[in-house]
Amino acid sequence: MKTDIQIAQEAELLPIREVAEKLDITEDELELYGKYKAKLSDEYMERISKNPDGKLILVTAINPTPAGEGKTTTSVGLGQAFGRLGKKAVIALREPSLGPCFGIKGGAAGGGLSQVVPMEDLNLHFTGDFHAITSANNLLAAMLDNHIQQGNELGIDTRSVVWKRCLDMNDRVLRNVVVGLGAKTDGFVREDHFVITVASEIMAVLCLADDMKDLKQRLGRMVVAYNYEGEPVTAADLKAVGAMAALLKDALKPNLIQTLEHTPAIVHGGPFANIAHGCNSVRATKMALKMADYVITEAGFGADLGAEKFMDIKCRMAGLKPDAVVLVATVRALKYNGGVPKNELSAENMDALHKGIVNLEKHIENLHKFGVPIVVTLNSFVTDTEAEISYIRKFCEERNCEFALSEVWEKGGEGGIPLAEKVLDTLENKESDFHVLYENELSLKEKIETVAREIYGADGVNYTSAASKQLKKLEELGFGKLPVCMAKTQYSLSDDPMLLGRPEGFSISVREAYVSAGAGFVVVLTGAVMTMPGLPKAPAAFNIDVNEEGVITGLF
Amino acid sequence: MKTDIQIAQEAELLPIREVAEKLDITEDELELYGKYKAKLSDEYMERISKNPDGKLILVTAINPTPAGEGKTTTSVGLGQAFGRLGKKAVIALREPSLGPCFGIKGGAAGGGLSQVVPMEDLNLHFTGDFHAITSANNLLAAMLDNHIQQGNELGIDTRSVVWKRCLDMNDRVLRNVVVGLGAKTDGFVREDHFVITVASEIMAVLCLADDMKDLKQRLGRMVVAYNYEGEPVTAADLKAVGAMAALLKDALKPNLIQTLEHTPAIVHGGPFANIAHGCNSVRATKMALKMADYVITEAGFGADLGAEKFMDIKCRMAGLKPDAVVLVATVRALKYNGGVPKNELSAENMDALHKGIVNLEKHIENLHKFGVPIVVTLNSFVTDTEAEISYIRKFCEERNCEFALSEVWEKGGEGGIPLAEKVLDTLENKESDFHVLYENELSLKEKIETVAREIYGADGVNYTSAASKQLKKLEELGFGKLPVCMAKTQYSLSDDPMLLGRPEGFSISVREAYVSAGAGFVVVLTGAVMTMPGLPKAPAAFNIDVNEEGVITGLF
Repeated sequence: MKTDIQIAQEAELLPIREVAEKLDITEDELELYGKYKAKLSDEYMERISKNPDGKLILVTAINPTPAGEGKTTTSVGLGQAFGRLGKKAVIALREPSLGPCFGIKGGAAGGGLSQVVPMEDLNLHFTGDFHAITSANNLLAAMLDNHIQQGNELGIDTRSVVWKRCLDMNDRVLRNVVVGLGAKTDGFVREDHFVITVASEIMAVLCLADDMKDLKQRLGRMVVAYNYEGEPVTAADLKAVGAMAALLKDALKPNLIQTLEHTPAIVHGGPFANIAHGCNSVRATKMALKMADYVITEAGFGADLGAEKFMDIKCRMAGLKPDAVVLVATVRALKYNGGVPKNELSAENMDALHKGIVNLEKHIENLHKFGVPIVVTLNSFVTDTEAEISYIRKFCEERNCEFALSEVWEKGGEGGIPLAEKVLDTLENKESDFHVLYENELSLKEKIETVAREIYGADGVNYTSAASKQLKKLEELGFGKLPVCMAKTQYSLSDDPMLLGRPEGFSISVREAYVSAGAGFVVVLTGAVMTMPGLPKAPAAFNIDVNEEGVITGLF
Repeated sequence: MKTDIQIAQEAELLPIREVAEKLDITEDELELYGKYKAKLSDEYMERISKNPDGKLILVTAINPTPAGEGKTTTSVGLGQAFGRLGKKAVIALREPSLGPCFGIKGGAAGGGLSQVVPMEDLNLHFTGDFHAITSANNLLAAMLDNHIQQGNELGIDTRSVVWKRCLDMNDRVLRNVVVGLGAKTDGFVREDHFVITVASEIMAVLCLADDMKDLKQRLGRMVVAYNYEGEPVTAADLKAVGAMAALLKDALKPNLIQTLEHTPAIVHGGPFANIAHGCNSVRATKMALKMADYVITEAGFGADLGAEKFMDIKCRMAGLKPDAVVLVATVRALKYNGGVPKNELSAENMDALHKGIVNLEKHIENLHKFGVPIVVTLNSFVTDTEAEISYIRKFCEERNCEFALSEVWEKGGEGGIPLAEKVLDTLENKESDFHVLYENELSLKEKIETVAREIYGADGVNYTSAASKQLKKLEELGFGKLPVCMAKTQYSLSDDPMLLGRPEGFSISVREAYVSAGAGFVVVLTGAVMTMPGLPKAPAAFNIDVNEEGVITGLF
């Protein structure tokens, strides 16, 4: 069987100019990055700004399991299927992070016959957006420490610096560091931390900004530290906004690539789905809606994190309205949720399926709370049995969801036609009555409790005394009207990664809260969140190579 | 008066495709990065590999002073002047570093009417080459610490790690750090250091590599640490070569941009000129020689560092042979060398000129030792007087150097025609008898002493006992036949930055030596070398901005 990278490398790509041409994008409106990648210019965005919006389809999933669900693969395959049905569709995805390519993950661009290409470029430097974010993040950090070094006029308390340096690399030894050692000219000593670039607030800011003006305002609002009086010090106070914005000028422009079947794909931005909102950029989504009749986008992790934030953060801020949700599951993942160990998932097991399908049930109930019609799809595996599939189909239909099997991994767009048809049916026959889950006016604790009860199914929320104090202080500082961005394990609806299925009778424990004032949300931590991954004993990097003809191997 | 960035932004650039077309480069051989930047493909390089070589002209300078010499401006202006004379010329320059843009420097792409453009792109992310180097450097660091964390099979002594992390940012607090704090899963604690990206050995490796095969061999040879037995541990031992090479795949391809007068400029690579060799890439220079009849390139700092390394490291390794050297001076800088303070340089001062011209004299003598004909040029200022200019002209002609005034800053290519004519004369009438200064077979100390006596004019060399021990160990490890890369202050021919003019009766003090085994030289430190700059109290970043139309201001 061919690997993803083999399939991707054997694919005949169209020059991206031709992909653009089919969308009536002139060559002048493209900024080419080689033959197969381009940025879409502000002029183009302006020109299409009066077009009517297409339909917005969110792809989300049940809680992720080691069995794999294939959310991106489904998004890509669905887009390709729309193409085969003669519909004008654009896919709007996140950019993958570089660091994890060298760790366990190896790459992220869909899979099988449903991939976006060129996959090596996408997984390595792509158009440099993440490098620009890394630079802007670290410029701000350097200016912060330089301010302290040069007299500290703002009275920054070096024990209360909250801005962290970043690298797009899995590098565990940078999680906790001490900087500023050496001589007097080498700065003040303080504890510091590096996060991976996707965890930088600048990533979230870039993804939520409407335009350059909004970007600069958001950058300026970012809290980098507190002074000795406990008052926030911002990036604007450090006079870092213009230089950061200059670094981000091109990164703000959405990127156009294609799928294996030449469906246009706008791939732009990629914030974490725990301490940030986990969606591609607002600009890319809005642009895509002006470009096509159908826009397929995705959100990070499972629907409890990704879809909730897509609705409550991205759609709320950007005024977007999803028309349908595709909820991805697999027979294997549902059996895993029913207690079957990873290596026994290939055998039919109706008992485990009955037990595990409650995870899907809860996500269906949750998504209905946002008023958006749902299509459930099973990303099919050869080991799935007729009985298993029928059971799930019936289960979904009883819950007022359309259902379709998806074979996009194996068959590309062809394998997504039943799903595309169900989505088209849904868009035609079911009205979206989209609304956010909670209003801005609620207190931070009320918002947290709404998400915990309504989405996670918790009985209530416990707060550490530190967290309560922080939430109180954030409200005093005027951040109480922001939405909450919940950082919770992706593996469970609860905050305990071991509780699979549909946990009940549990409470959510809030351990910490802080504001991402530029992004415009309050981050609520319910457990230890890893913002700088490490490498495994035998990292994927061992196998990555490039030959003398420039062909890369070992990404997957 | 217009600033450099204003001039650059008002310039009418040709689409880079048209610049390429004039060089008979087909569109398929270009990898565009927007409209005005492109990478030149390996296929193009292969196609022109049988072309005859053009003439190679090195632009170097006297020791830099706060008065400024304008080496890049002269290189660009000379290229433009060749164009005006109907000659086929290509300029081959280094890429500027991002970090210093936000510090004092503000930008680096020539000046006045002799600039390479687009200057904002060049000074910010350009085509991402430096970001790729940063990523490869930090991947290797992460793999090194991960190896230690995961059992340390190679027995790496954490007190003997020599590989450093890097960022393309002026960030003083990263000079000396402690990493690996926190829990057991966060790594082993050790002291670490960040350098600016241009100081990464990978930068030097990329600039000296002939092709992908050579790049990988060089990357593999890089020494990252020593084990408990004192034996070197390399990047190959860590199995990091393939993944680093994959990250550097595109960075290895030279970049094509243009001057204000549309002269083609290949801008590629930019290693430090102290701990590395300070020249643009070998691939770019070799490619340029196949593309044009005249190739103008430059080397970092003054001729004692830049030109010496260009000859003894780059030309030696790459088999290049310079046909002429242009030695840049200014009346102001010569007067500064004669003891005039910075704010009094505008007044005519023949005494100071007589006193300071010895710096130029020594560089002329030095360059003659390499057997290459010399043209001295004065980068003219309005405050220069006839008497001063005449004196310098006569001084040069008496020393068998052609002389020309250059007004390229004010007048662009037009102002460089007298210089271009002298260069053409020289190329026609004086044969280059190029040879390196010393043979590989000499011992490391003999090589150091040759450079110190012949180039710096020192009476001898003192070694700290640590340095002597290190040099002995490097020879035992088999690195004795490598050329030496001298890290010395750029401000003086001696190792004391205060000694201007032509110091005599001094010794050079060698404090440390280490091998850059991938680059292929032994670095010899004669003083504290700053490999991570800091920001000043009011950094240039304060004034950098971008407006809603994407126009950047504040770079200069």
